Amino acid sequence: MTGPASHPPRKRARARTKQAGLPPGTMVHVGERQVEQVRIRRIRYDEHHYDDHNLAAGQQPAPPPDDRQVTWISVTGLHQVEVIEAIGKAFGIHPLALEDIVHAGQRPKVDDYERQLFIVLNALESVDDQHIAVEQVSLLVGPNYVVSFQERDSALFDPVRERVKAGKGRCRKLGADYLAYALLDTVVDHYFVVLERFSEVAERLEETLIRRPDPAALGMLHGLKRQMILLRKSVWPLREVVSGLQRGEFPLITDATRLYLRDVYDHTVRVIDTIETLRDLLSGMLDIYLSSQSYRLNEVMKVLTIIATIFIPLTFLTSIYGMNFEHMPELKWRWGYPVLWLVMASIGGGMLYYFRSKRWL
Amino acid sequence: MTGPASHPPRKRARARTKQAGLPPGTMVHVGERQVEQVRIRRIRYDEHHYDDHNLAAGQQPAPPPDDRQVTWISVTGLHQVEVIEAIGKAFGIHPLALEDIVHAGQRPKVDDYERQLFIVLNALESVDDQHIAVEQVSLLVGPNYVVSFQERDSALFDPVRERVKAGKGRCRKLGADYLAYALLDTVVDHYFVVLERFSEVAERLEETLIRRPDPAALGMLHGLKRQMILLRKSVWPLREVVSGLQRGEFPLITDATRLYLRDVYDHTVRVIDTIETLRDLLSGMLDIYLSSQSYRLNEVMKVLTIIATIFIPLTFLTSIYGMNFEHMPELKWRWGYPVLWLVMASIGGGMLYYFRSKRWL
Amino acid sequence: MTGPASHPPRKRARARTKQAGLPPGTMVHVGERQVEQVRIRRIRYDEHHYDDHNLAAGQQPAPPPDDRQVTWISVTGLHQVEVIEAIGKAFGIHPLALEDIVHAGQRPKVDDYERQLFIVLNALESVDDQHIAVEQVSLLVGPNYVVSFQERDSALFDPVRERVKAGKGRCRKLGADYLAYALLDTVVDHYFVVLERFSEVAERLEETLIRRPDPAALGMLHGLKRQMILLRKSVWPLREVVSGLQRGEFPLITDATRLYLRDVYDHTVRVIDTIETLRDLLSGMLDIYLSSQSYRLNEVMKVLTIIATIFIPLTFLTSIYGMNFEHMPELKWRWGYPVLWLVMASIGGGMLYYFRSKRWL
Amino acid sequence: MTGPASHPPRKRARARTKQAGLPPGTMVHVGERQVEQVRIRRIRYDEHHYDDHNLAAGQQPAPPPDDRQVTWISVTGLHQVEVIEAIGKAFGIHPLALEDIVHAGQRPKVDDYERQLFIVLNALESVDDQHIAVEQVSLLVGPNYVVSFQERDSALFDPVRERVKAGKGRCRKLGADYLAYALLDTVVDHYFVVLERFSEVAERLEETLIRRPDPAALGMLHGLKRQMILLRKSVWPLREVVSGLQRGEFPLITDATRLYLRDVYDHTVRVIDTIETLRDLLSGMLDIYLSSQSYRLNEVMKVLTIIATIFIPLTFLTSIYGMNFEHMPELKWRWGYPVLWLVMASIGGGMLYYFRSKRWL
Amino acid sequence: MTGPASHPPRKRARARTKQAGLPPGTMVHVGERQVEQVRIRRIRYDEHHYDDHNLAAGQQPAPPPDDRQVTWISVTGLHQVEVIEAIGKAFGIHPLALEDIVHAGQRPKVDDYERQLFIVLNALESVDDQHIAVEQVSLLVGPNYVVSFQERDSALFDPVRERVKAGKGRCRKLGADYLAYALLDTVVDHYFVVLERFSEVAERLEETLIRRPDPAALGMLHGLKRQMILLRKSVWPLREVVSGLQRGEFPLITDATRLYLRDVYDHTVRVIDTIETLRDLLSGMLDIYLSSQSYRLNEVMKVLTIIATIFIPLTFLTSIYGMNFEHMPELKWRWGYPVLWLVMASIGGGMLYYFRSKRWL
Repeated sequence: MTGPASHPPRKRARARTKQAGLPPGTMVHVGERQVEQVRIRRIRYDEHHYDDHNLAAGQQPAPPPDDRQVTWISVTGLHQVEVIEAIGKAFGIHPLALEDIVHAGQRPKVDDYERQLFIVLNALESVDDQHIAVEQVSLLVGPNYVVSFQERDSALFDPVRERVKAGKGRCRKLGADYLAYALLDTVVDHYFVVLERFSEVAERLEETLIRRPDPAALGMLHGLKRQMILLRKSVWPLREVVSGLQRGEFPLITDATRLYLRDVYDHTVRVIDTIETLRDLLSGMLDIYLSSQSYRLNEVMKVLTIIATIFIPLTFLTSIYGMNFEHMPELKWRWGYPVLWLVMASIGGGMLYYFRSKRWL
Repeated sequence: MTGPASHPPRKRARARTKQAGLPPGTMVHVGERQVEQVRIRRIRYDEHHYDDHNLAAGQQPAPPPDDRQVTWISVTGLHQVEVIEAIGKAFGIHPLALEDIVHAGQRPKVDDYERQLFIVLNALESVDDQHIAVEQVSLLVGPNYVVSFQERDSALFDPVRERVKAGKGRCRKLGADYLAYALLDTVVDHYFVVLERFSEVAERLEETLIRRPDPAALGMLHGLKRQMILLRKSVWPLREVVSGLQRGEFPLITDATRLYLRDVYDHTVRVIDTIETLRDLLSGMLDIYLSSQSYRLNEVMKVLTIIATIFIPLTFLTSIYGMNFEHMPELKWRWGYPVLWLVMASIGGGMLYYFRSKRWL
Repeated sequence: MTGPASHPPRKRARARTKQAGLPPGTMVHVGERQVEQVRIRRIRYDEHHYDDHNLAAGQQPAPPPDDRQVTWISVTGLHQVEVIEAIGKAFGIHPLALEDIVHAGQRPKVDDYERQLFIVLNALESVDDQHIAVEQVSLLVGPNYVVSFQERDSALFDPVRERVKAGKGRCRKLGADYLAYALLDTVVDHYFVVLERFSEVAERLEETLIRRPDPAALGMLHGLKRQMILLRKSVWPLREVVSGLQRGEFPLITDATRLYLRDVYDHTVRVIDTIETLRDLLSGMLDIYLSSQSYRLNEVMKVLTIIATIFIPLTFLTSIYGMNFEHMPELKWRWGYPVLWLVMASIGGGMLYYFRSKRWL
Repeated sequence: MTGPASHPPRKRARARTKQAGLPPGTMVHVGERQVEQVRIRRIRYDEHHYDDHNLAAGQQPAPPPDDRQVTWISVTGLHQVEVIEAIGKAFGIHPLALEDIVHAGQRPKVDDYERQLFIVLNALESVDDQHIAVEQVSLLVGPNYVVSFQERDSALFDPVRERVKAGKGRCRKLGADYLAYALLDTVVDHYFVVLERFSEVAERLEETLIRRPDPAALGMLHGLKRQMILLRKSVWPLREVVSGLQRGEFPLITDATRLYLRDVYDHTVRVIDTIETLRDLLSGMLDIYLSSQSYRLNEVMKVLTIIATIFIPLTFLTSIYGMNFEHMPELKWRWGYPVLWLVMASIGGGMLYYFRSKRWL
Repeated sequence: MTGPASHPPRKRARARTKQAGLPPGTMVHVGERQVEQVRIRRIRYDEHHYDDHNLAAGQQPAPPPDDRQVTWISVTGLHQVEVIEAIGKAFGIHPLALEDIVHAGQRPKVDDYERQLFIVLNALESVDDQHIAVEQVSLLVGPNYVVSFQERDSALFDPVRERVKAGKGRCRKLGADYLAYALLDTVVDHYFVVLERFSEVAERLEETLIRRPDPAALGMLHGLKRQMILLRKSVWPLREVVSGLQRGEFPLITDATRLYLRDVYDHTVRVIDTIETLRDLLSGMLDIYLSSQSYRLNEVMKVLTIIATIFIPLTFLTSIYGMNFEHMPELKWRWGYPVLWLVMASIGGGMLYYFRSKRWL
């Protein structure tokens, strides 16, 4: 699923609906078609060799022989269900796992099929200040191979490929489980990029809300809160996934790799911390907004009340002497007019004094 | 229980009241009568055979012989307590389970009666944009049979019947526990249909609230929140049920089926995630509503205050010169009138400048 | 404690205060005196016999001989501490349990004294739409007897007595633990009656709040919320009690009875669900109230602003030409008056257009 | 610490600051000096003997010989650090425990030093309607002795002394652990006294808020909420302490005493329940306050709007005919004045009808 | 990281971003350069010896021989990655730990690398009333050495150095684990200093909010709330760290030291308590602010309404008799003017009576 994540609940629900009534394990592609043709690329390496080539259309990848080389098969594009099915048959993938691979919108999870681990992840990418694109990435980890399934031809895993090619670091010395770790680490690292952007937006928004709150800022605040709600739903299961992998429940993960997975786990927890902190800060911003609105309303009402309370009684007085009764003795008094001015000045002054005593001025 | 779920707490409580004081295990039908006659249908199948017929009225179903065929007895209509009681006797169902079967409004649960599993589920159906119908579905799972109890003659389980008949997929090869899984999966899949509808309604509602908030939208928002509260109460125990079945606590569930139940468990968790997300979004909408109301009120009050604050003092001035005192020298001045205009214009301009400096304009 | 439960925190605290400084195990009656005389009734039964008589005043009940009959001694009225103490001595009840029996306001709990189980429950009864009466019921369960202590001469346990007398169902075949279950079940069933009433009140209240919100409805809403807070505090420990009994921690509870206790446990959980749902609904109602008040305020203010904003400037204009300056050339113009009407009409029309463009009309 | 508990966070933090940078186990007295001289009182008793005397200044208490008598040494006044240190040396108290004894503001806790239990408690006392005094009480429990440390010469433990002296109840028969229980029970019982007072204040406050809400009531509500926040922080760790003691983790606590500690545990849970209930009720009161304020504002605005909306247009009409244009034909009409009255009456009536139709009247 | 902690989420996220795409274990310095040159100081001591000197630039520290002396190497300044790397090689520090040392913004954690414990802490310092500086402190604990890494040349650990030098207390007798405890204790003690300052600020703020609420106070309240959110995220993982160390999971920690760590754990829990209490109090203050604003608005509106409601109808009356109709009989009445005064006085009085009956006055 690569569309903006703004309305996922509906999208997810709708996606699922498509399949209601079908037998379990039926492969139905759910998501958007992102590439023309399914592309399959195979990289084989050990400490001394490195071999990388794209499979021709129609050519089927097969599980590698039981040697010491690590094989990484990356499949891009999931809409040709028959191709995925053929790969599934070749690698002995369980039908339910195959169903999940082509069915975007899964929760991150790790399933143990004895000789294979099946991992579902959501890779994130910032689209703009308020939207993120979600891509489902599935990893099938075997004893000496990893099969990765992606919908889009993104550059997500290019740095891993570079590192394997360059042969630097530990990656050529360790097995398929380390490769799976490297892919997982890359996905988690991208969460930080997305969160950095949101944090910047939130900071700018806070200044806007303090300086000049308007409905646009409010809408943006609401949009960010929604993104946080959705991100949170996506990261919590990821944490369970990494936690499970790192605890040593799965024999395919070696102890050396588990140390690295512990590091990924720390990152995941930091991602969650940052999301929770952002949520709390956004909630605080709504409080600022509402209480500053309340303050402004009070200020506006005070101005209105002061003006009205001073001038309405005065206008009443003047309107009295604007009446046309024949018998109004005050109108004939020599000092009537200046006396009225004095009366009005003292009423006005008294009102001002009253307001000052009430701290309205 | 098939009525709209809008006031379940009262319904449930009332339902229970009917029975207060009766000995436990007493069968009292609680719910609405949905079909004229209890209908019983028996399907027997294995990998090679398939037999499907309706039992005549008065004919009693009996537990199947201990062979390799799977028997599925579906009972529709629960108001004829004596019929259900007879089935209970034939299958050796515990009195408490029988009581629950005819008593709509149970929490989803799974009870282990050694040689039988008793599962209570709530099947949902969208009635309209704001209401859902709840039907209690009970499943009795034995070693080679499943007895399903429904209140209404709904098409809920038709797809399962079709699949068994067609003999496609795994369903004819696996046992009664797989059949129970298929029925459970069908019920859970319908939750997605209901949630999709609510998600769409919520989306439309959000646009309404931003564009033109009115009490009708508010009422709808409240209605949706209530549905979420009720759905949530229904799904959390369902999750426990599926979690228990999938963990392997019950010997009647084979390992092959447990893999499929793990899949249902994932779906249940996704249902819960979606409900929680919707709740959070709906809460956010109420915040939008309240803060946009607060913003509007501020805007309205600013307009009122600006108009009143400019014109009330001016009107006071004019009312002074509308007085009828005999001795008002200003009235005789040659330039009195134009000078007053100048004074009023500068007062008005000063006010406008003041408002602009306060960012009210 | 039988008074209305509207201010329990104070009541409970005060009750406790009475005893501060006394040695533990001191029996102080706390509660209201509900009957003149402590009444003791003894029922003995097995599958074939049934014997029921009231003990004369002063006659002491004794633990039954170790035979297969079940003895149920029900004690009504707790203010005569010496009578309760004598029973305690006869049955070997622990001093702390005796203290709790006569001291109303305990939390529901189950204490295991090796050969006896001591269970404290709160029985509820609806007094009116907003109040409930709470009665503390204590059960002492021995190998072949149950002693029940109640404050009031209520009909609470009459249905159990009827069932035992009629000898229907399982009750005459099973032991003292089943009798204890039956009493517990009766207490829990009454929670549903109370909740049904509250649910109905809440429903009526919701309609009132939507139709015509006023402070009375608000006060009722607040009262209901308080009842829910208090009910909740009472039911959560009850759930722990039933959960403990049903898990098989106590050897006095046989496996046959535990199946029934599992059923009571389900009911307790449903009571909690209903309370939580009601709380959520009541919170939602407060939100409705506040947001509809906010909506109304906006509407009121719009009307005021529209009227004021149209007429205040117009009145200013007319007041200008009400001035008595000698030199006001407009006053002498032939068409001055109709032109002013035109000016005022266009100002009024412009204002209306402005309000319409702002969607205030 | 005996000052009012109104600003504990600061107090606690400041107290701690005093010590930052000192080596652990350094004894620094933190708290207020409450008595002139440290007073030490020694009570020794068994079932048949009772001996009670105050130690002279400078006289050091020593651990009792290993006989069957129970020794209770109560130390009042903690500011003379050297005295406490000498006691610590005599009884072999761990330096960290000694540091805690003289350092008021600890969390309630129980530490196990193999042959000694070290218990820290906070005793509460009501100062006035809104403040409580907190006193730190430390207990050192050995095999046949208890050393109690208090800051103030309060009458807190007098009832225990009386009971031991009178020799009634179980206290002379059971060991030092029972004495520790009795002291703990006394402390917990005082929580009820404090809570009773707060409950009464809350009840009076609620009536005030409903009858005539003003800022003073609001300030009181806020003060009570703060007390609840602080009480809660104090009671939750106390619950852990009692729970630990009662679970049988500590060999110094005999099974007979554990039954009594279970009773204290029940009381502690009830204290927590009461605090939580009070917090919920206080939150509800704030809701009442805000929503009744909102209701009043609406009422006030309606009155203003009705008056203004009726009279502003009418005044506009009259001001028209107050203009001094030479050519205003209406002014010369015979029935102009009565017709205007009719027009104004119908406008006023129409407005009233409109307000009635909107349910503002 | 030493900048003010006001926008950590963004800072942290950005820091992480720097590294996305690099192989794990790559050392990238993240943070601000605080000292010119990395400084390394080595202290060696046992009960009888003490040796302290700074290593010359370029000189490498090496792990001490396996003797009974304790070696403490403190490294100040982390921007010269190659120096840290060299130390890492000499001490056999795992690459992931090295990465964390130079990468400020880690969560507090403890990692067990068999023969070494790696502890990450955040040391706090108050910058001003609303900001705190955070410095990451890493500790590497071996069997007889501790390596501490700090970014700044702060005086944080000077008191520990003094104590070791003076040889007082237990510190010279116990091993490297006790030294690690002393450093940890110093870090936790500084939390109290920071919290004390915030508590004082909160107290002053509360008085301001009650006396004269204005937007500045509101902004300060919001700033404090944000600091609490951030502090909380920092302290919770610290608690896990100390809890883990104190539970005895790590063989490097001796039982003697664990008693002291239990004390640090108590302090950490008190820090958390204080933070939570402050958060609750700050939330309460926002409630005060909002409800007092609501109260003031009501008061302001009442004044406006009373004035307007009294004078608007009166002004209407006077404006009637200001009209210039030729035929207005009242104008010619002898007592017209005084009668009008009577009428107006009774209307005004009636209004005042009405307001008093509504308790607006």
